[in-house]
Amino acid sequence: MPLMKSWLDSANLPDCPFPLNNLPLGVFSVGDEEPRCGIAIGDHILDAASAEAAGLIDLDGGPYLDVPFWNDVMEAGAAVWAELRAQVTDLLKAGSDLRGEVEALLVPIADAQMHMPFLVAEYTDFYAGKNHAVNVGTMFRGAENALPPNWLHIPIGYNGRASSVVVSGTPVRRPWGQLKSPDHDVPAFLPSRRFDLELEMGAIVGTASEGPVTVDEADAMIFGYVLLNDWSARDIQAWEYQPLGPFQAKATATSISPWIVMAAALEPFRVMTPAREKDLLPHLRDTGPMLFDIDLSVELRPAGGTSSTIARTNYREMYFSAAQQLAHHTTSGCPMTPGDLLGSGTISGPTKDSRGSMLELSWGGKEPITLVGGESRSFLEDGDSLTLRGAAKGDGYTIGFGDCEGTILPALADPYERN
Amino acid sequence: MPLMKSWLDSANLPDCPFPLNNLPLGVFSVGDEEPRCGIAIGDHILDAASAEAAGLIDLDGGPYLDVPFWNDVMEAGAAVWAELRAQVTDLLKAGSDLRGEVEALLVPIADAQMHMPFLVAEYTDFYAGKNHAVNVGTMFRGAENALPPNWLHIPIGYNGRASSVVVSGTPVRRPWGQLKSPDHDVPAFLPSRRFDLELEMGAIVGTASEGPVTVDEADAMIFGYVLLNDWSARDIQAWEYQPLGPFQAKATATSISPWIVMAAALEPFRVMTPAREKDLLPHLRDTGPMLFDIDLSVELRPAGGTSSTIARTNYREMYFSAAQQLAHHTTSGCPMTPGDLLGSGTISGPTKDSRGSMLELSWGGKEPITLVGGESRSFLEDGDSLTLRGAAKGDGYTIGFGDCEGTILPALADPYERN
Repeated sequence: MPLMKSWLDSANLPDCPFPLNNLPLGVFSVGDEEPRCGIAIGDHILDAASAEAAGLIDLDGGPYLDVPFWNDVMEAGAAVWAELRAQVTDLLKAGSDLRGEVEALLVPIADAQMHMPFLVAEYTDFYAGKNHAVNVGTMFRGAENALPPNWLHIPIGYNGRASSVVVSGTPVRRPWGQLKSPDHDVPAFLPSRRFDLELEMGAIVGTASEGPVTVDEADAMIFGYVLLNDWSARDIQAWEYQPLGPFQAKATATSISPWIVMAAALEPFRVMTPAREKDLLPHLRDTGPMLFDIDLSVELRPAGGTSSTIARTNYREMYFSAAQQLAHHTTSGCPMTPGDLLGSGTISGPTKDSRGSMLELSWGGKEPITLVGGESRSFLEDGDSLTLRGAAKGDGYTIGFGDCEGTILPALADPYERN
Repeated sequence: MPLMKSWLDSANLPDCPFPLNNLPLGVFSVGDEEPRCGIAIGDHILDAASAEAAGLIDLDGGPYLDVPFWNDVMEAGAAVWAELRAQVTDLLKAGSDLRGEVEALLVPIADAQMHMPFLVAEYTDFYAGKNHAVNVGTMFRGAENALPPNWLHIPIGYNGRASSVVVSGTPVRRPWGQLKSPDHDVPAFLPSRRFDLELEMGAIVGTASEGPVTVDEADAMIFGYVLLNDWSARDIQAWEYQPLGPFQAKATATSISPWIVMAAALEPFRVMTPAREKDLLPHLRDTGPMLFDIDLSVELRPAGGTSSTIARTNYREMYFSAAQQLAHHTTSGCPMTPGDLLGSGTISGPTKDSRGSMLELSWGGKEPITLVGGESRSFLEDGDSLTLRGAAKGDGYTIGFGDCEGTILPALADPYERN
């Protein structure tokens, strides 16, 4: 599919992340105004809430956009998702009769503050990138036992904490936690010394389910995708995670990009998962291309310093697709809810410069990386700003997600002091 | 504190679970009417929503009871919680001038259908009963390594699935899942053969937090308690839980009792945690009695058969209190939300007949138990009805929770068949 032309010139540039083909969904505000639903186009945001109020968007069963989140649209189902894209395309396409009315509803992105685009119902994080799992497993258990026995048979995951999901731009406070060094007899309560990022994609469940769903049904339930940084305190994790999995190590914050890229915008970029190393049981088998060819990168900028791109990889490196993860998530009968967020797991490529976490990039801290400005890093330092970027490259256009950024604030001096 | 007398005689009987001292909060309906907030008293329910609409309950900042859940009251904070109890006590106490008006708002419990009493924001399940952890650890890792190294230092927990929490009386469908027997090379997708209960208490977070909270602050944040059965598929769990913890094994359902017993009703029953075997770090230390002396039991009734009490224990068997669990939950800065539900972990006593799961009662299936009717059980069978009961015994009165019941439905013949 080629570029779809808009009357808004900035949307037609080949590197613009928000062409008419994209139409990602966010929640924005300007100045002191209340947050409201918006759709990115070129270097502007269409005030979708006002467009609906004015009758320019008129969805079956609506209004849906009189609230500052997109969950009501998700819940309305796939027919409404398609209707939304069709109507907004009509408003913004080159030659649209409605240009005059629509132009009055555009806000420059540069003037807008972005907010959480949806209410996160529940958050699940997977561990379904094979390079990442092999890297981490090798460090912790040796190369022979790198992959747990179940790893090639199910997308392993754990429930995370929805309340700690934040939008790009929200600072992230270095956490305190209980840690124990191997050379100490007893644990201590300290600020994390091994605070890390995880480069992931997040899939957003759009429609509810009650019982087990197939991989095809799961794929159809997914409303859209965001970039996701699952901040991780490795030292807290090492002490707490056996036998019940990560808990406080992953509960400080999870950052997402501000724009939900609807699954429909990613259709041209579908790719198959890599070859299976072991046959999957029938209910988890691939039934078609359900990963997406999305270039991903991580930038680290020290406080007042220069940015370094510390990793470049691609979403197609995943061993399991989000559809497979969601299908597995429902096998027990677990009900899924509109607004559920599924983290892919860290997306590392096969090479050293394609690893999606500091844990892997610095090989557990043993091989610090050197930044452009000359500083070195094993884990993240206070003041570091981390930015995830994602882009699917089409025929003369780009599908972007907006930056997923977070800056590390120093740990509280005394976490129990109250003002 | 002695029994507080009500003008409703049934509330004054020493074994009545719902005396004036209790006033637990639920959501009920009669016939085809919409669910609404109610408060149990004797063998009746006070229609609290109608009482508020009539001005008999008038809380600061209200109305709160025009919705079919108690979350708005939780969020209003401790002053409103106390106001609610004081006003309802005035309505129902012996000699109340308002008896005539209030009597018209009583509904027999026998006529009511109970619903979820609150919207579960997020659900966390802990593993903080020492007898349970030692039993399970001994079975899986041997007596020498029964307790993981972190166990005595932090209340270990994992995030569960809020969407699968159901109210007592909801049937529970035996799940399918991926399993692997030790004597098979590859896993299979089958109905669980080792489906189990877990006897727990649930603590409900009433007020929000942003950063780390102390144990005292955590205790004050807890709105109330319910009985909780964390249904568990042991064979699914065995295959999936390493390294990231339980996931689908615990996602089929978690049942809670229909009545929230407010923390205030349990004040007379506070007890200390057992003696510490290792000093806790300061931020997790006990600052007073924060467990409760609540007798607990589990009954198993086969389809069409006779009930057997298979376990009797007490909430005071916990090693960590809910306040300690909640304090630990916030150490990383994890935000807590009104309606968060914290499962205590399985509450097993020191003796064989005080174990809170079939896994322990039948010692992993090796020592099946015999029921009153002569049948034996290693794990749960289709048609089995499980009932948890809890009672705090006061001076001439009882604080009850209402039964927490669930009956096992057979697994779906084909989980992917659609009508």
